[in-house]
Amino acid sequence: MAPDAAAADVDAVVALVESTGGEAFVSRGVTGVYDPVSGREQARVSRVVIGLVGDVDQLEALNLQAMRGVAKVKRISTQHKLVSREHHPERSVVHVGGVPIGPDTVTLMAGPCAVETPTQTLAAARMAKAAGATVLRGGAFKPRTSPYAFQGLGERGLRILSDVRDEVGLPIVTEVVAVEDVAMVASYVDMLQIGTRNMQNFSLLQAVGAVGKPVLLKRGMNATIEEWLMAAEYIAQRGNLDIVLCERGIRTFETATRNTLDISAVPVVQRLSHLPVIIDPSHSGGRRDLVLPLSRAGVVAGADGLIVDVHPQPDLALCDGPQALTAGDLQELSRSVAELTALMGRRMAGHARHERRRLAG
Amino acid sequence: MAPDAAAADVDAVVALVESTGGEAFVSRGVTGVYDPVSGREQARVSRVVIGLVGDVDQLEALNLQAMRGVAKVKRISTQHKLVSREHHPERSVVHVGGVPIGPDTVTLMAGPCAVETPTQTLAAARMAKAAGATVLRGGAFKPRTSPYAFQGLGERGLRILSDVRDEVGLPIVTEVVAVEDVAMVASYVDMLQIGTRNMQNFSLLQAVGAVGKPVLLKRGMNATIEEWLMAAEYIAQRGNLDIVLCERGIRTFETATRNTLDISAVPVVQRLSHLPVIIDPSHSGGRRDLVLPLSRAGVVAGADGLIVDVHPQPDLALCDGPQALTAGDLQELSRSVAELTALMGRRMAGHARHERRRLAG
Amino acid sequence: MAPDAAAADVDAVVALVESTGGEAFVSRGVTGVYDPVSGREQARVSRVVIGLVGDVDQLEALNLQAMRGVAKVKRISTQHKLVSREHHPERSVVHVGGVPIGPDTVTLMAGPCAVETPTQTLAAARMAKAAGATVLRGGAFKPRTSPYAFQGLGERGLRILSDVRDEVGLPIVTEVVAVEDVAMVASYVDMLQIGTRNMQNFSLLQAVGAVGKPVLLKRGMNATIEEWLMAAEYIAQRGNLDIVLCERGIRTFETATRNTLDISAVPVVQRLSHLPVIIDPSHSGGRRDLVLPLSRAGVVAGADGLIVDVHPQPDLALCDGPQALTAGDLQELSRSVAELTALMGRRMAGHARHERRRLAG
Amino acid sequence: MAPDAAAADVDAVVALVESTGGEAFVSRGVTGVYDPVSGREQARVSRVVIGLVGDVDQLEALNLQAMRGVAKVKRISTQHKLVSREHHPERSVVHVGGVPIGPDTVTLMAGPCAVETPTQTLAAARMAKAAGATVLRGGAFKPRTSPYAFQGLGERGLRILSDVRDEVGLPIVTEVVAVEDVAMVASYVDMLQIGTRNMQNFSLLQAVGAVGKPVLLKRGMNATIEEWLMAAEYIAQRGNLDIVLCERGIRTFETATRNTLDISAVPVVQRLSHLPVIIDPSHSGGRRDLVLPLSRAGVVAGADGLIVDVHPQPDLALCDGPQALTAGDLQELSRSVAELTALMGRRMAGHARHERRRLAG
Repeated sequence: MAPDAAAADVDAVVALVESTGGEAFVSRGVTGVYDPVSGREQARVSRVVIGLVGDVDQLEALNLQAMRGVAKVKRISTQHKLVSREHHPERSVVHVGGVPIGPDTVTLMAGPCAVETPTQTLAAARMAKAAGATVLRGGAFKPRTSPYAFQGLGERGLRILSDVRDEVGLPIVTEVVAVEDVAMVASYVDMLQIGTRNMQNFSLLQAVGAVGKPVLLKRGMNATIEEWLMAAEYIAQRGNLDIVLCERGIRTFETATRNTLDISAVPVVQRLSHLPVIIDPSHSGGRRDLVLPLSRAGVVAGADGLIVDVHPQPDLALCDGPQALTAGDLQELSRSVAELTALMGRRMAGHARHERRRLAG
Repeated sequence: MAPDAAAADVDAVVALVESTGGEAFVSRGVTGVYDPVSGREQARVSRVVIGLVGDVDQLEALNLQAMRGVAKVKRISTQHKLVSREHHPERSVVHVGGVPIGPDTVTLMAGPCAVETPTQTLAAARMAKAAGATVLRGGAFKPRTSPYAFQGLGERGLRILSDVRDEVGLPIVTEVVAVEDVAMVASYVDMLQIGTRNMQNFSLLQAVGAVGKPVLLKRGMNATIEEWLMAAEYIAQRGNLDIVLCERGIRTFETATRNTLDISAVPVVQRLSHLPVIIDPSHSGGRRDLVLPLSRAGVVAGADGLIVDVHPQPDLALCDGPQALTAGDLQELSRSVAELTALMGRRMAGHARHERRRLAG
Repeated sequence: MAPDAAAADVDAVVALVESTGGEAFVSRGVTGVYDPVSGREQARVSRVVIGLVGDVDQLEALNLQAMRGVAKVKRISTQHKLVSREHHPERSVVHVGGVPIGPDTVTLMAGPCAVETPTQTLAAARMAKAAGATVLRGGAFKPRTSPYAFQGLGERGLRILSDVRDEVGLPIVTEVVAVEDVAMVASYVDMLQIGTRNMQNFSLLQAVGAVGKPVLLKRGMNATIEEWLMAAEYIAQRGNLDIVLCERGIRTFETATRNTLDISAVPVVQRLSHLPVIIDPSHSGGRRDLVLPLSRAGVVAGADGLIVDVHPQPDLALCDGPQALTAGDLQELSRSVAELTALMGRRMAGHARHERRRLAG
Repeated sequence: MAPDAAAADVDAVVALVESTGGEAFVSRGVTGVYDPVSGREQARVSRVVIGLVGDVDQLEALNLQAMRGVAKVKRISTQHKLVSREHHPERSVVHVGGVPIGPDTVTLMAGPCAVETPTQTLAAARMAKAAGATVLRGGAFKPRTSPYAFQGLGERGLRILSDVRDEVGLPIVTEVVAVEDVAMVASYVDMLQIGTRNMQNFSLLQAVGAVGKPVLLKRGMNATIEEWLMAAEYIAQRGNLDIVLCERGIRTFETATRNTLDISAVPVVQRLSHLPVIIDPSHSGGRRDLVLPLSRAGVVAGADGLIVDVHPQPDLALCDGPQALTAGDLQELSRSVAELTALMGRRMAGHARHERRRLAG
């Protein structure tokens, strides 16, 4: 739709298509705009796309191009229509609490694998912020292979994350594992993560697609790139285009690393889809000593960001301690990543406020 | 617990364990008992197992062995306690609407991949019954890689299945894909299926664990056997031991078949777990011509049953037509499987009614 | 070529094709015919096939069909021409020292993974024969991942095998790992084995293709079925169609078994190629307890034979002891396999001598 | 051994060890030293290591430390002794015709996948040199999955390569596929390549280990890192420590790329082994558009070099055209790689002559 299309214009297109037995899926990308009065970010719809499914001849007969508010009608043959680059040639920017993730920036997200205590979470958040990270990660719901492993603090963990955000000022991304928790989790955080084991939990994908918060969609450890984009399409179909894809390693026969980071996936996905792609160098390797080289590799392969585990005391971590960085590790990583980011002609993503100052200054 | 343990005995054990900070998970296996008066099957609890998690020394100090109703206290070191053979040395029998699945029988389940119309479903069910199948499979909720593929008829499909059961007399197994649907789906069918993409959807596992119907747990196409048993443990922990495992092919580099049936998984799992294991020769290969040889292979490798796709008109199927058997194919398969079953010293599983007659006669 | 085609006829076809810039590959299948005078088997060429590569229009213009000795000219589009079923619709029989491997029989091959001493080899051979095996396997050259592991006895091992054959009367199959050894190894044994690590050692494939002994071609543990048939094509192209394919497990993410037996490969290959296919249940699983169920599965999936490890004292074996069967295990396996073989409408393969008596009797 | 150990000292150690029933493997690293008189490089032995295998107690009783020329006796528990970092803590430098491959440099190797004609090879070599590559790659023996695909020009191709080297001045690496060709190939080129399909062709590994030229050992597409190092150990055991490892993608379920570049393998191997590691971004992805991002990723992950396909007319290439770079692509890659190399605190590897001038200037 055109940038100035009204809601009524959109409704009119949908009604017409449905009248012929077709289906219409409306997706909106939302841009956070910094409001200097409130000091908070306001959401503004930046893109509206309507995906149509139905008989091609019938749809063509509708002459949609002539309708008010319609910018362009395009026939798309790939199975992942809404997230495809064929459908939306410019690469997208997704905003998380004012922090952009997209083609001009590299966004550093850091935080503890699992929220354990207020003290540990606050310490980790300060480590993240001090090193230049601009999004805080932290798990309150942990899907674990064994039912006897630590499953996360649940809503208590979300309250800790929320308090830490108020204290430290970083937007939060956290995993959601059940449809019934989606609205509750969304009320606490800035971005919802779909974990690797839930990449084909289609009802969960649809639920996060409907809730109106950006989504971080991790690749299933056994998912092809095609299946991953299809999973994103499930979210987009429910009206949410603010999706960031995260490559986190695939399952192979190699046992020296927990999973095998598929570094090629970054450029391959960016060719097929307009969505941003980041990498998780912590979970893919499962080893602290690999986080730095894999982060570097991700940035120069074109990744739009990184999400890494940090912990004030990795040896005491309740989850994935062997891969968590210390404060010093993270600062070294951040320095190295910043150098490479500049070399790639990009900048490290800051909060909108600082971006503004930067541009003004 | 002892066979004659009362509910109060179970509660007493749980209360004592929890008083020390430990956790107690009560699981029950339910046997369907045919009631000649109502002509229906009544559920009877046949096994009660309480899994304990906590500090080993503290748990030992409780002297649980001395409590009323306690048959045996056993320390289990594997991570999948409740489903392990270490915990329950005899192989279990699970009953689905009066039909046993277990070590003495081979159970043939057949039906359409997807419920499309009442006519198609009834025709497929009659094909199944005529060939000797004793459980009807049929999908009403279809998790599909693409959001644009046929997703199943939903509750309408369940009503069709239910009507067909009344007409034909076969108990039904169907997939459930969302926590919020579990109770509704359970109200229509005899067994709930967890599909390959949801094997690590832990909230769904917990939901089917709590609803009191037998569960068919398909192996994730990328799941190790260890992870598969852990997924079963999630169900068992919520109190449900009536779990049947289904090997349906794993993802490998080979492209001649859709997935690679891991035939070794049958004996390997039977060594580790007391739960019954069946195979799905239709989805693993994805080719009609492989269904017969893989079914045979499954039976002689020790599988406790088979679940196969049939369709009255495979060419018109909305889902997985290339692998669906015709009526003639299914009869040939059934004959061959029956011969091999006898050779293995087992019998084809029939409904309790007929079993009774068989034993009486 | 026609059964009565003369060598000169074959040469004439080759000369004509080469004169136009094309290539011609002559392959022969050899049948062992029992000679009652010498008590030994004589080789007789049973099939001659000439594979042509070149410009299709030019080859058609040659009118080869009219040449003397030519039975049929056929255009083949698959990449594996000589071994394809398109090229040779009837399934082939390969004879190893008088023992058939083909569609009417199931051939049991057994023996020690590695030849260690004359005593151990003789004991294993007697175990094999007593249980009804009709081909003896035994390794003298062992390709091992580590250069510090036992590498086999080399030619000394071949002499032991040869002595044991004279003593026990079973033809021998053994692995060859180097081009320079092919002629020497072929002088001692009845069938040459190409191991999984050498499946794409193309110069070795060509060498065994030229030496005139039947070849057992194991599937590479990472090879697709397409690549496996291509490897067979390398052998066939050098003039040898007496190839038996052996499925021995592929590499997957599963760690409960050494490799994953791809049981589907048996019917899939039999559709694509006329060559016999056997399975190796010992190396695929790497566990003694899986040999019996996998052997059964192989037979009913249509395998033309089995090759299993036996050892008089598995605990002392220098190679793969954990998977070797004892004498009792092998007899149980043989009984079970014989029952299933009969059910499949086949017979256990015996030596030509006994076959003759059987047919005569 | 100490740097000044004499041949007699080495022999004395070997003799003593063998006298106790142990085995001793002598390996030498050779450094090319530029001789200003001849204008050519002379080989000088730079490291001598003797690997011992045998009874640990007996070996300890020998008191080898006291023998003349012995620098250090060390007990090594890993299976890959000679190539392990435990055994040789400093990372090694391997010289190819005067060009170093090691921890201080990044070496760019480029050339055609297959040598087709003198003109094409010369054009590709000039493209390589113009862009700053310092080693020329080119295949004369091509192991192809299909026997009907172009197999390379053989010795004729080697003569072309040799002529091009004289013309352009770049040392050459080429693949060898058969034991019987090793000496002949080594007489033409500066470095021998073992391809992915031959990584476990142990007799070929031993042959190149004995011939005294540096070896480029590609990882098997299905080989674990452990198996890859074991393959290197086979070469080292025959006396050759001048081995460069090359990660070229592993086989996974993903089909968007030909293979999956295992970028983690670079730092993982460098931790376990002292040998240099390079990557092949052309064969791993199989797509031209991935060569640049994967090359960058390799350099910042710590790779010691790159080997890439170039072709003057990729559309006409007889082998792997879709992945070959054009002249412009290669120059862009070279500029980008040089920037990243500097950032990593390394330099692009030049020929010894130029290195000398650089150091002198």
